[in-house]
Amino acid sequence: MRKQTRISVLAVAAVLIAGCATVASTARQEPIQPIEPAKVANPAMVELGKKLFFDTRLSRSGGISCNFCHNLSTGGSDNLAASIGDRWQKGGINSPTVLNATLNIAQFWDGRAKDLKEQAGGPIANPAEMASTHVAAVSTLQTIPGYVAEFKQVFGAEQITIDRVTQALAAFEETLVTPNARFDKWLKGDDNAITEQEQRGYILFRDSGCVACHNGVAIGGNSFQKMGLLQPYKTAHTAQGRIDVTKKDQDRFMFKVPTLRNVELTYPYFHDGAASTLAQAVDTMGKLQLGRTFTTQENTDIVAFLKTLTGDQPSFALPHLPPSSDKTPRPDPFAKRK
Amino acid sequence: MRKQTRISVLAVAAVLIAGCATVASTARQEPIQPIEPAKVANPAMVELGKKLFFDTRLSRSGGISCNFCHNLSTGGSDNLAASIGDRWQKGGINSPTVLNATLNIAQFWDGRAKDLKEQAGGPIANPAEMASTHVAAVSTLQTIPGYVAEFKQVFGAEQITIDRVTQALAAFEETLVTPNARFDKWLKGDDNAITEQEQRGYILFRDSGCVACHNGVAIGGNSFQKMGLLQPYKTAHTAQGRIDVTKKDQDRFMFKVPTLRNVELTYPYFHDGAASTLAQAVDTMGKLQLGRTFTTQENTDIVAFLKTLTGDQPSFALPHLPPSSDKTPRPDPFAKRK
Repeated sequence: MRKQTRISVLAVAAVLIAGCATVASTARQEPIQPIEPAKVANPAMVELGKKLFFDTRLSRSGGISCNFCHNLSTGGSDNLAASIGDRWQKGGINSPTVLNATLNIAQFWDGRAKDLKEQAGGPIANPAEMASTHVAAVSTLQTIPGYVAEFKQVFGAEQITIDRVTQALAAFEETLVTPNARFDKWLKGDDNAITEQEQRGYILFRDSGCVACHNGVAIGGNSFQKMGLLQPYKTAHTAQGRIDVTKKDQDRFMFKVPTLRNVELTYPYFHDGAASTLAQAVDTMGKLQLGRTFTTQENTDIVAFLKTLTGDQPSFALPHLPPSSDKTPRPDPFAKRK
Repeated sequence: MRKQTRISVLAVAAVLIAGCATVASTARQEPIQPIEPAKVANPAMVELGKKLFFDTRLSRSGGISCNFCHNLSTGGSDNLAASIGDRWQKGGINSPTVLNATLNIAQFWDGRAKDLKEQAGGPIANPAEMASTHVAAVSTLQTIPGYVAEFKQVFGAEQITIDRVTQALAAFEETLVTPNARFDKWLKGDDNAITEQEQRGYILFRDSGCVACHNGVAIGGNSFQKMGLLQPYKTAHTAQGRIDVTKKDQDRFMFKVPTLRNVELTYPYFHDGAASTLAQAVDTMGKLQLGRTFTTQENTDIVAFLKTLTGDQPSFALPHLPPSSDKTPRPDPFAKRK
């Protein structure tokens, strides 16, 4: 390894000596790693999952799709502290971005779903979110000839099941990674990809300890940590975090560390959405998690760094959904319910 | 003109004589004309309008965009009898499709807006729909640097006004036409573009008088007509139609004739959304407007014809919206209101 590095350095020197204008490009060794583009194993399944992601017929009202709360026009989030659910119910917790969610150690703030496939079934059947049931959602899809044909193409069978629905949704969501952030380019050796201020912000972010939790490819998403480590986090929000899953008292107020990729787009912040701006979020995190009050200049520098984490947003044509048949239920969002 | 036609016929004959495999392609003279692709005069304005169309920040709650009710994944409609408005209010009337709306004689069911630009301002400020105000919407946009730059690029000025917002929205909506329906291909001379049944359905549609109202390029959209011409239309819905605009008693229950393009996608039907299926809609229209009860076979044939009117759906990449700045209001859909 060391020998290779030496050779590489020599090679770079040779290039420089040759007067070439190319910037010396050596990957940096940092606690954060660049993200790579998604590898699509099954394009047909991804296309199917994309349609389902945008399909309001998975909800009881016929008005709410996955994209309603995980809006791919706005960083995979709805930019609301609490999401709007069925019949305008207030969402239980800030909707996390679906971007790069495939890199999370588990899904939901409390990690109660082990992967994207398991997660995808949650909101469909959550009475405060899409408010349908798995049985109703699947039986609706089964009446739509275009879906029947597409499930057959993808799964080799016309039978639609919630397992196949969530598998397709997960396959689509796995493609929602955001490579080529300016910071990634810097990590890969492009010195000019970020400004001096942004670099200063990163060094401060790293050396003051933010990277203890926000590290790796997703810059978070890979551990559960206590919200309010050194000082308690004050909130009227009732979420208790991971204790709801593990039932262990030590997990009270432990939440999955959110990814910081595209954090410029995913305001407001924290599980209760209480921090409206990055400046507020950085200030609160510094005080509560690190016992440090960042100066205005430091805060500004870190925020500048955080804005270098916006990567290429998923680019695809808005899907066109197969029309309902006469047998497909016509939802009434305003019907009285039993 | 006649001379040109003769020359054209001769040219076709010459091609046929030459043994060319091309199908003789002579445009048919019918009361319905093919739709042509949109000509985009100002691509930058269209791009801006597209972003605004998908932007929930034009609503008071931060949850509702134009696309929420005029969903371009589902025929430019929400497939609900009544749309979901701010705080889950029930929409006053079935959301008409935005597809080909540029061809309408006027906008809204009662024609109260003279064009798309005037229409676009309506839902933004309608308390039961997006529930914002023009002042609030514009002042929100003005805090978003990406929009300020884009308005400057398009309009030559950083000042955002509701006039410019609606002009951009209209420019985008003007592109939402749907050429290349199978019926258009048949109209243009491709005999095999529609089946015998579909052709039978069209002839019946034409000769029984549906074309009296559903004619032209949009197959509707170009006149106001009485809903319940020969028999009264029974509905609990309170909309009175064009009388609300003209204040003339003769305009009671006069509604704009909806376009039939993409009608397979835009269920449910009528201003009250009471007809769930095309079969129901055809049956009701036959009885009420023509005094004719179509047989099951006739109804099926007409429905088959109507499904040939689905054209190319607008194809474009899902837009990515410029992020809010720290100065942009953070809407709270659940806040108590004064």
